[in-house]
Amino acid sequence: MPNHVAKVIEVVGTSDSGLEDAITGAVERTAETVQHMRWFEVTEIRGHLKGGKVDRYQVMLKIGFALSEDE
Amino acid sequence: MPNHVAKVIEVVGTSDSGLEDAITGAVERTAETVQHMRWFEVTEIRGHLKGGKVDRYQVMLKIGFALSEDE
Amino acid sequence: MPNHVAKVIEVVGTSDSGLEDAITGAVERTAETVQHMRWFEVTEIRGHLKGGKVDRYQVMLKIGFALSEDE
Amino acid sequence: MPNHVAKVIEVVGTSDSGLEDAITGAVERTAETVQHMRWFEVTEIRGHLKGGKVDRYQVMLKIGFALSEDE
Amino acid sequence: MPNHVAKVIEVVGTSDSGLEDAITGAVERTAETVQHMRWFEVTEIRGHLKGGKVDRYQVMLKIGFALSEDE
Amino acid sequence: MPNHVAKVIEVVGTSDSGLEDAITGAVERTAETVQHMRWFEVTEIRGHLKGGKVDRYQVMLKIGFALSEDE
Amino acid sequence: MPNHVAKVIEVVGTSDSGLEDAITGAVERTAETVQHMRWFEVTEIRGHLKGGKVDRYQVMLKIGFALSEDE
Amino acid sequence: MPNHVAKVIEVVGTSDSGLEDAITGAVERTAETVQHMRWFEVTEIRGHLKGGKVDRYQVMLKIGFALSEDE
Amino acid sequence: MPNHVAKVIEVVGTSDSGLEDAITGAVERTAETVQHMRWFEVTEIRGHLKGGKVDRYQVMLKIGFALSEDE
Amino acid sequence: MPNHVAKVIEVVGTSDSGLEDAITGAVERTAETVQHMRWFEVTEIRGHLKGGKVDRYQVMLKIGFALSEDE
Amino acid sequence: MPNHVAKVIEVVGTSDSGLEDAITGAVERTAETVQHMRWFEVTEIRGHLKGGKVDRYQVMLKIGFALSEDE
Amino acid sequence: MPNHVAKVIEVVGTSDSGLEDAITGAVERTAETVQHMRWFEVTEIRGHLKGGKVDRYQVMLKIGFALSEDE
Repeated sequence: MPNHVAKVIEVVGTSDSGLEDAITGAVERTAETVQHMRWFEVTEIRGHLKGGKVDRYQVMLKIGFALSEDE
Repeated sequence: MPNHVAKVIEVVGTSDSGLEDAITGAVERTAETVQHMRWFEVTEIRGHLKGGKVDRYQVMLKIGFALSEDE
Repeated sequence: MPNHVAKVIEVVGTSDSGLEDAITGAVERTAETVQHMRWFEVTEIRGHLKGGKVDRYQVMLKIGFALSEDE
Repeated sequence: MPNHVAKVIEVVGTSDSGLEDAITGAVERTAETVQHMRWFEVTEIRGHLKGGKVDRYQVMLKIGFALSEDE
Repeated sequence: MPNHVAKVIEVVGTSDSGLEDAITGAVERTAETVQHMRWFEVTEIRGHLKGGKVDRYQVMLKIGFALSEDE
Repeated sequence: MPNHVAKVIEVVGTSDSGLEDAITGAVERTAETVQHMRWFEVTEIRGHLKGGKVDRYQVMLKIGFALSEDE
Repeated sequence: MPNHVAKVIEVVGTSDSGLEDAITGAVERTAETVQHMRWFEVTEIRGHLKGGKVDRYQVMLKIGFALSEDE
Repeated sequence: MPNHVAKVIEVVGTSDSGLEDAITGAVERTAETVQHMRWFEVTEIRGHLKGGKVDRYQVMLKIGFALSEDE
Repeated sequence: MPNHVAKVIEVVGTSDSGLEDAITGAVERTAETVQHMRWFEVTEIRGHLKGGKVDRYQVMLKIGFALSEDE
Repeated sequence: MPNHVAKVIEVVGTSDSGLEDAITGAVERTAETVQHMRWFEVTEIRGHLKGGKVDRYQVMLKIGFALSEDE
Repeated sequence: MPNHVAKVIEVVGTSDSGLEDAITGAVERTAETVQHMRWFEVTEIRGHLKGGKVDRYQVMLKIGFALSEDE
Repeated sequence: MPNHVAKVIEVVGTSDSGLEDAITGAVERTAETVQHMRWFEVTEIRGHLKGGKVDRYQVMLKIGFALSEDE
């Protein structure tokens, strides 16, 4: 069995509704160009404030993906 | 007044719906065997991806509990 | 153009319903006395447990704000 | 029940006799101007040396306090 | 010589008098149910405040113990 | 599908021959009393020195395990 | 000799010319309202990009100051 | 308004004259192939020494960029 | 002499035999598409367990590479 | 005024009575061979356990010292 | 019993064959000039790449040693 | 080819003019007694304030050096 190698990229998802929405948005947008995604890890939770309210949540993620389907 | 000693355990809750659901699932499942739980702290937020979508959220928690009720 | 200086404060928002509610509560309560808030960063996610359930989520935030509107 | 918001400040207590004395000094001096203090966390333990001896202990603390008594 | 395996647990000792008292209390209470303890490491120093004073010191410790006497 | 909860324990494996041997020793000794182990993470690599040589490698691991087979 | 207590605040200085300029700007602007400043520590170096160039350096600082001149 | 997703890359700028020069060099070289860059964060400052002097400064940066202009 | 800019990528090598094998596998697989690799740094050591044994080691690496041969 | 350069060394003080005693012991023993010591910072608090009790506290310190008296 | 004081130094071992070889090389070379070494801790694992392969492993270690034999 | 071992020392450079000046001052002063210096890493950026201005920058560096020229 050949050993696996995965790549890790970092993205920031943004949402005005909540943390899961920022995460799923980042994952689904990344899926348009990256295949075989396997896991994510949240590395930072930030946000933008406007008019005394939360304007946008920003969640930074590492995403790991295999280089081919069978890995 | 005798001084308190609390124990700390670490668990990972998993949910396909969101972060709070992973946290409450981990807490309630732990409550089946551990009493007098007092606090939790999130130490890691990860997840599993499948088909270009979030398949499961995984939240690692430290949970602190007293050794007896009156502590 | 004069250079900007922002201040950073730290607050803890508490909610019995979820993480975003703890964050928005902290931001909106802070907005009663602080103006020109620009960003936040989550530095800790903890909570209080009671009766084997999550009683309250506690989210610690750094909040950055400008010293005047045009900064 | 309205949700709570606490503020967090950072102080450095100094003592020539020991760590607890630096902590309690910082807490009691802060209490002169801040009410409803609830918890502290030690973030750094340093000190000043003079003549080959410990001259002063310096303990940095985060202190959390509620914005009103019933929070 | 067989190789050793040690277990590590995490506890929080509490004391109203000082840091060493919180540490020794945590160790001695743990010794009631755990044998062959070999080392500890302090991972967090916190405390509870009441009436503008330190009410209790809380010291979190990792404790390492061998699985049998001769390890 | 019910959501999963995993537990995490921390152990230290010791070996006089190398890092992998310390890791596998810790895992296999833990397997004598813990079932359904799924993953490990190395949190610290230390060792004991004697006579100017490495006497023992000590590798601290977090080990995650499911509470039942089908989780 | 009474023991000292210092306060610590956090600010972000911004400059389009360089890191020292962001630091000195933050310090001098803070000096307009805070006296007896004693030390700073850089906790984060970030910046804003525009048109493929560095638009602004942003340096986050902790600043420690005494509560009165003779402390 | 669709939610944003940004990508984050990591680069190391090198300069024999100073820190800002290493940062701007890294940013401007990256701008040759990456558009819509929005922010950077310094993650490491190192350097190479030769003949008892600083030969080169090496500054590691995370750079965030939007996937299209209007994000 | 023009100043250098290097890129940094993150990969995870997997091996069922050991840590060096996971590292060299990740490096050699990356070399199929990336040239001028200069250094690596281990950022995480994890693994997968099955049947009470180590099934695979997983080593996360940052890899730095120059953008052209002479850098 | 020539600029200062200080050196930093790391030592571990050990005491069977308490944390301050471990710190002052480390400082005073270091003073036998090192002059012009200016500050210390605690980097780790550990200890040795024996017979279910704390046998020795071990406090790791960084100590900074000037290279000559007038620095 | 007089209390112990240990010193801690930091070294980097290099090997073209593997991690343990880099560690033991660093320890044995240090033993030529330092006596009474007691423990090590790995603080960084890096390496040099050449021609698309691992050229050298570099392991940074803290080494603790007593100031005399009976400590 | 014998494997290399490098030593790492920590120093603090001080300057009233800027960060690079503090770094180069620390490196050049260290070069008076240490040979074969190869790299540095900045571990802390602090400073001293006086009269509402930056009085001195203090940059802490790790410096790595080989034990002989050909290493």
